[in-house]
Amino acid sequence: MSLHISQQFNTDLETVRNKVMTMGGLVETHVQSACLALIEGDAVLAERIVENDFKVNAMEVSIDEQCTNIIARRQPTASDLRLVMMIVKTITDLERIGDEAEKVARMARELAEEGGASGNFPEIRHLGDHVRKMLHDALDAFARMDIEAAILTAAEDQRIDQEYESMVRQLITRMMEDPRCIKRSISVLWAARALERIGDHSKNICEYVIYLVKGKDVRHTTVEQLQKELHDKQ
Amino acid sequence: MSLHISQQFNTDLETVRNKVMTMGGLVETHVQSACLALIEGDAVLAERIVENDFKVNAMEVSIDEQCTNIIARRQPTASDLRLVMMIVKTITDLERIGDEAEKVARMARELAEEGGASGNFPEIRHLGDHVRKMLHDALDAFARMDIEAAILTAAEDQRIDQEYESMVRQLITRMMEDPRCIKRSISVLWAARALERIGDHSKNICEYVIYLVKGKDVRHTTVEQLQKELHDKQ
Repeated sequence: MSLHISQQFNTDLETVRNKVMTMGGLVETHVQSACLALIEGDAVLAERIVENDFKVNAMEVSIDEQCTNIIARRQPTASDLRLVMMIVKTITDLERIGDEAEKVARMARELAEEGGASGNFPEIRHLGDHVRKMLHDALDAFARMDIEAAILTAAEDQRIDQEYESMVRQLITRMMEDPRCIKRSISVLWAARALERIGDHSKNICEYVIYLVKGKDVRHTTVEQLQKELHDKQ
Repeated sequence: MSLHISQQFNTDLETVRNKVMTMGGLVETHVQSACLALIEGDAVLAERIVENDFKVNAMEVSIDEQCTNIIARRQPTASDLRLVMMIVKTITDLERIGDEAEKVARMARELAEEGGASGNFPEIRHLGDHVRKMLHDALDAFARMDIEAAILTAAEDQRIDQEYESMVRQLITRMMEDPRCIKRSISVLWAARALERIGDHSKNICEYVIYLVKGKDVRHTTVEQLQKELHDKQ
């Protein structure tokens, strides 16, 4: 009986994990398309992302509900329970990444509709690529429950922050040199901020993986400490 | 036996709810002090908040752990389980509000250390008061599991967004008129953005209350619909 329940739990869990990966894939596409819409001034693509954000939200609601049902019905052991709780947290971050992608898409739509020098935000391209890669790696670490990959990916957040800070400094300098581009620069600033937050959420996902595998809370441990631990172990 | 477990569950839950309220109170203080530090250019107060953010983080970790233990040991019914899951989500938002308060405090410290026109960000005062009131009301709705208060408080988020947007427009105008104040204005912009995000997190807390009480997911329903429902009922 106990084995039976445990097998059912594993089957349920596998279904949920697959759903999370599907949700992650959708969110990843939204991040990529939102950046593309901004860079290329593509209002149609931007509109499509804004219209499709509800799908991400619906997936979060459905997976969340399924997780609660699994706990209620299968009454998992403490360690299995931690795994389910971790999935609930992961999808909250994925949903918020979807929201940030939607913000970038709204910005892209607005700028494209205003016309003028359409698109051409070269600064955003590099940051966008970096953030999307980090999200992809975070989902990969989640899928494989790979703690080392999670630690390495979490460390990327610092580099994204630095890249973002340097963009902000450049934009401030440009605004000071040419006040006519202030409004446009602020839009780029908001888009960059949204991307930087996607980095934060991806880092959260990595931390859930680390937390689960290490069995202690590292959410408020610095990445440097974790990297050092990883290094000492190797 | 079943009654016995249920009583233990209620006792455990009461302890956890009290802890959440303590955590909420601490976060509220941090938000208020961070705004004050910014407005008054008080670097010492700002430093104290930055130094104390770890307390908020430690509370989140401890409550989170306690919630997992309650579920594992008491195996609550589906509806009790939803309540525990809702507490786990609430503390995640509280912890992030703490992070935003810390960001405002860091901004305040930086600006105070740079010297110049110390503090005096009158724009931020009103927004700060509004956001802090919203957070307070959200915690109140949580404490009393009051769905009507939660709906009304969630609606405040739109007003905060409007206030924030209007501040951004004013700041852009000011930067265009006097490029010398661009750097300073961007700092005010960041602080305002952090406050606006505190509004978002407070709204999340309200939505968890509504979700729990209504037993369906309203996280992606508009506040207008909820207000209409509330109005129709009355």
